[in-house]
Amino acid sequence: MIIEPIGLIHTPFDKKENCPIQPVYASDATGHVEVFEKYAPGLKDIEGFSHIYLIYLFDRAGEIELIRPTFLDDEPHGIFSGRHPCRPNGIGMSIVRLKQRDNNVLTVEDIDVLNNTPLLDIKPYVPQFDCIETATGGWTTGKEGRPKPKDRE
Amino acid sequence: MIIEPIGLIHTPFDKKENCPIQPVYASDATGHVEVFEKYAPGLKDIEGFSHIYLIYLFDRAGEIELIRPTFLDDEPHGIFSGRHPCRPNGIGMSIVRLKQRDNNVLTVEDIDVLNNTPLLDIKPYVPQFDCIETATGGWTTGKEGRPKPKDRE
Repeated sequence: MIIEPIGLIHTPFDKKENCPIQPVYASDATGHVEVFEKYAPGLKDIEGFSHIYLIYLFDRAGEIELIRPTFLDDEPHGIFSGRHPCRPNGIGMSIVRLKQRDNNVLTVEDIDVLNNTPLLDIKPYVPQFDCIETATGGWTTGKEGRPKPKDRE
Repeated sequence: MIIEPIGLIHTPFDKKENCPIQPVYASDATGHVEVFEKYAPGLKDIEGFSHIYLIYLFDRAGEIELIRPTFLDDEPHGIFSGRHPCRPNGIGMSIVRLKQRDNNVLTVEDIDVLNNTPLLDIKPYVPQFDCIETATGGWTTGKEGRPKPKDRE
């Protein structure tokens, strides 16, 4: 099956070394989500949401490893038990804060992806579906993340 | 860019008319996520998570409409302001409860997708990243959904 980008995500992060590992660590970094003009009508009513999911392609990820250390600790975990970019199909997902819409461009905060990342989809963050207060975080529980990712490639 | 399924999602829903519109409406429906054997090592440590994201392909969706009514109300909304299957790239996302893992098969509850849906990725639901209690739900706020979806095709 063939997937085509619907836009591009513009961010301050041109290099992997400088890119935050999750939106919650992105410390207010601002990005601009450019939705190609032909898809812009699909953004109708998105302004009402405080947060959105960006679905995108990890287009500069390295080789896929099914079990590997992550950015949160030094233990190897299965790729489907974490968010590492080097994964089958290379689909990434980030929840970002939506600040503004100007026609086909969304200004977002807490962005954690590389500059010019191909955008595949946008979905609204719907708190009654998506905020699960009782969820348990498995091996990530209590992990704060490492200040400087050392295994990102 | 080419995307290949990493597995199949088996559910009780063979017809769109019977398929719930979101996991929270799926009333404990049980499904089985079959990850193809070659990818099974990537499931290491997933047992610790109570919830997971399934990323999949809406392989039986109808024609894409950028602005259309949704399952939650009768107003037309932009496709990126909702979760309707008939969307560019046809990528779906559901948060489901993980009950059990048997090698390459995950038993999940609250499943809301059609039987034999192609699986593209699994990501853990990490509450410290993903549960945003302050999020606001835009036009979906207060909407309960319709008991019987009438525009699903």
